[in-house]
Formats: sequence, C-alpha cells, structure tokens
Amino acid sequence: MKEVKIYSPATIANLVCGFDVLGLCLKEPCDIMHIKLMDEKKVVIHSADGYNLPSDPAQNTAGAPLLEILAETDLQIGFDVTIEKHIKPGSGIGSSAASAAGAVVAANHLLGNIFSKEDMVRFAMFGEKVASGVKHADNIAPCIYGGITLIRSIFPLDIVAIPAPQMLITVVHPQIEVRTSDARQILRKEVLLKDAIKQWGNVAGLVAGFMKNDYELIGRSLEDVIIEPVRSMLIPGFDEVKKRCKEAGALGGGISGSGPSIFMMSKDEATAKKVELIMQDIYNRIGLPHHTYVTTINNEGVRIVNGEK
Amino acid sequence: MKEVKIYSPATIANLVCGFDVLGLCLKEPCDIMHIKLMDEKKVVIHSADGYNLPSDPAQNTAGAPLLEILAETDLQIGFDVTIEKHIKPGSGIGSSAASAAGAVVAANHLLGNIFSKEDMVRFAMFGEKVASGVKHADNIAPCIYGGITLIRSIFPLDIVAIPAPQMLITVVHPQIEVRTSDARQILRKEVLLKDAIKQWGNVAGLVAGFMKNDYELIGRSLEDVIIEPVRSMLIPGFDEVKKRCKEAGALGGGISGSGPSIFMMSKDEATAKKVELIMQDIYNRIGLPHHTYVTTINNEGVRIVNGEK
Repeated sequence: MKEVKIYSPATIANLVCGFDVLGLCLKEPCDIMHIKLMDEKKVVIHSADGYNLPSDPAQNTAGAPLLEILAETDLQIGFDVTIEKHIKPGSGIGSSAASAAGAVVAANHLLGNIFSKEDMVRFAMFGEKVASGVKHADNIAPCIYGGITLIRSIFPLDIVAIPAPQMLITVVHPQIEVRTSDARQILRKEVLLKDAIKQWGNVAGLVAGFMKNDYELIGRSLEDVIIEPVRSMLIPGFDEVKKRCKEAGALGGGISGSGPSIFMMSKDEATAKKVELIMQDIYNRIGLPHHTYVTTINNEGVRIVNGEK
Repeated sequence: MKEVKIYSPATIANLVCGFDVLGLCLKEPCDIMHIKLMDEKKVVIHSADGYNLPSDPAQNTAGAPLLEILAETDLQIGFDVTIEKHIKPGSGIGSSAASAAGAVVAANHLLGNIFSKEDMVRFAMFGEKVASGVKHADNIAPCIYGGITLIRSIFPLDIVAIPAPQMLITVVHPQIEVRTSDARQILRKEVLLKDAIKQWGNVAGLVAGFMKNDYELIGRSLEDVIIEPVRSMLIPGFDEVKKRCKEAGALGGGISGSGPSIFMMSKDEATAKKVELIMQDIYNRIGLPHHTYVTTINNEGVRIVNGEK
C-alpha cells in the first residue's frame, strides 16, 4: 500500500504589520502525519493524540481538503490519515494549517505530484474554512512554500516567496484561549487612513528589509498600529514581553496570527535564548502555564520523511 | 564666486498603491538651476520663466529650504538662485520638489558636502510645506536619492532605496488644474480594513516585484483600491487611458502624485511609445491640451552639471 510520513510545521501569520498578507514557516514545532492511499473513495481520520479533534473528515482540517481533492478529481482512491498533533490547537502558530497543508502535500506526493503549489494552497484552504469559517492562506502558504510568503491576493491566488536572511525566532505560547473568530470580531471594520498609510509603509519596509538582509530595517518595520493595539489586550503580559525582549536585543515581534502566542525575531541564538528566559520569567510571575520554542525560519515547508513502502 | 548649475528631475509620488510612502525619479523633464554663493546671509530668487512663482524666498519652494539651511547653520553666507522651470507647477510630477531638492543639493555642493542625504531631505521638505502646507517626502526623497524610494516614516525620517529593474515610463500631463490640497481633501479619513489589507498586499507585492525584477508581479501590484477610485474622478479620460494602455502592453500605472498627470510603466520602449500615442489620441479627442514624455527611471537624482567657477 502506498503510504507517506510527513512533518508539517508551525507557521506565524501576519508578521506584525502584514495582517492577512504575510506568513513565515518555523522549523519547530511540527505535526507528524501518516497518510495511506486506499482503493475506496473516502477519507478516514485517526487522531493519535488527546486533542479530541473531529474525526468526521468534513469537519476535520486535514479531512476537508482531502475530500475536496476527491471531489475535484476522477480518481477512484481514498486517504487514511493518522495525525500526531504536536502543534496545540488554538495556540496561534498555525495548528489547523499544519494539518491541512500536511494532508494535501502528502496526498500530492502519493498521487505522483500532480498538483502545483498553488493548487495545494487552494485545497488546503478548505481546512482553514472548517477551522475558522474563512479561507485564508497566511499560514497555509508558508507551510507549503517554506520561508516567508506574501499572499498578495486570495481571489485570484497570488503567492510571492520573499527571500530573507536567517533569523532566530522565539515563540511563547501562554495557555489561554483566544478564538480566531473572536480575535477577528474585535477588530474595527474601518481604520484611519493615516494609520493605514503607516501600516503599508511598514509592510513595504519589512519586505525590503527581508530582501536586503537589513536587520535594522526589519526591526524598525515590525510595528503594527492597527491590529496589535486591539488584539494585544486579549493577551496578558503582552506589552511587557514586547518591551523587555526588545530591550534585550530582539529585532522586534508581536502577536503570532490571532494569538495568544507571541513571537520575537533575533539576529543570533544568544539573544533568542535571552528572549526565551524573559518570556518564561514573565509568565511564571503571572502564573500562566506556557510553552516556549527557540527555532529558525524553515525554508522547506512540509517535509516528506519517507515515501512509498 | 562659487557657483553651480544643476539639473533637478521630475518625480512620481505614490506609485499607485504606495500612497504617501513610495516615489520614483524620472530622467525627464528636469528643472535647471544656477546657484551662487554670496557673502551676505540672505537668499535671492530669480525666475527665468513665465510661471510667476513667488520671488519672496520664504514663499518660494527653492527659497524656504535655503533659508532653513541659513537658520540652522552659523555660516555667514547666502544664496543667489536662478530657476529655469521646465517642470510645470501643478502637473503632479514633483515640480515643487524639484525646486526644493535641487536648491538643497546645490547648496550642499557649494558648502563642501556637509549634509547627509537625509539632512537634505529634511531641508527640502520645508519647500513642500510652502507648496502644499504639508511636509512630505515622496517626491523629495526620490529626487535626492534617485531611483525608487520608500519613505517608511517622516518622523523620524526613514528612507529606504528600493532597487528596481530598468523600465520605461510614459507620462501624460492633461492641462487641467488639480490642487494638491483639493486632491487631499476629497479623500475619506477612514477606509475599510479590507481595502487597507488589499492595499498593503499590493504595496508588499510592488516592492517585492521591483526587488525581484519580476515585471508581471509589478504589473499585478499596480492596483489602488483606496485613493485612485476617488481622485481619478478629477481627471477626465483617466479610466480610458489606463484601460487602453494596459491593453497595449503597459505593465500598469495610475495617477502621478495627486494628478492630473498619469504615468504608465512599460518593459520596453516600443510599448512605451505605443502608450504615448494612445494618451495623445485620447486627449486630442477630448480636446484637452497635454504634454507627454517617454522616459526612464533616473537612478542618480539631482545632477550637478558643473561645479565651482
């Protein structure tokens, strides 16, 4: 039986000023998925963890994209999926995207690479729709492409790989619940033009900073005058984390996706580890359970560990 | 007597989606300025054209920055300025910026290059304040730096040079009056968040397109969902110019600054000239007097033609 094992990585959407358009792929953490090709046209989901995720494939973020693949192709096949979830759902580092993108990349591998990366993003977005009600690609795209991606447009899909220098990323996940839909609902539907101008100046600066390997410019551009002031109120300790991490030498950072995770970018590992200690110190003092990661940009995206058996 | 002659070029602010943050320097047209160093601490302005510009240096876009230089330095010197204006005031291709930036670059040359480019932008913005009431740098910065510039922030000043491939620029100046202050006043102070997101996706795409030499991406990103739909109503023929020029192969384009000039970017000269014929055809039919230019990006900025005599 054709079978594949993949590692599907966590991702950071938005990157502070690039709300809904920028995303970055992390080396760690990763979900592990085993996918088998079946003769019968159906999708079966097994959860190898305690997260109690829906096993109905239509309600599962890995299942929905696979059902869509079956619906759009004439192939008389099905998929048997086992998910070892290491990226905690609701952490804000692309847990649903990892399942969706991982399933699609694995399926594409089993089918002999018949889909383009754009096709795969399109299929995987059906998983995001199940997870949050909205098709968005700011986690899916970096998960599939690796590195940093710009999603210039969803309809029509326009994904641009943004080259960037190597950087260390420190992530803290304070274990409170922030639902993506709530985090979206508290945003105002209108913003001041002068704030929007500031934001697109920063987005332009961030992209230029990445492409010029200009760490200082990256740091200066990691500023969000629209989303962060509202959403950060849902995350205890946010302001202190940001202030102290930057004082310790981090280039900058902010909310990962819709939170509650916070990420900080650093030029070197020593700083990234200092940043981790600060994050731990703050959440120990607040008394919030938390996880931290010190990792790097993952330029590969979903990784196929072994192919057919 | 120390004296210098300079060519100060026209510029295109905004570049469609980069309202208030992007600007591009053109090879042509250029103002010609002659500046002499005097012993007396004052500024004298001579106009060598028929535009009836203010000769009071405090009210003149070249004079105000020079007065500021005198005010901020201890030097017992003055400047005698003669301006041959070739960039028509009110055309929307940085006429005031050319006078202001040209005067400052010339003065800096005469003083032995004591100012940084950033200093020069800061001084030249006093000219923009005289011209439009607001300090802005989206014409000044490309005029002084050359090429394409991002003005990520004015306070504090943060200017980023954006490398770009060579392109042809076709400009048409339909001779109607659009006052910068009017063009600014008709803009809504609030914009929809979803439109702002689209805009910063396009700004990011445009910067990435320039830096990757990706002409198609540049073309797709030259879209403005916020400013152009409002301002283009002040420019007769705008929609037709844009539509027909793109059909003829132009990458894209839009309003130059606050108008009324319209610019179009093309990959090659044949297309740029076809675009020029289309522009002429449209304004001949409408019956509006107009000028057209087919030119390129000017990577040098203000050019010193000859130094001391």
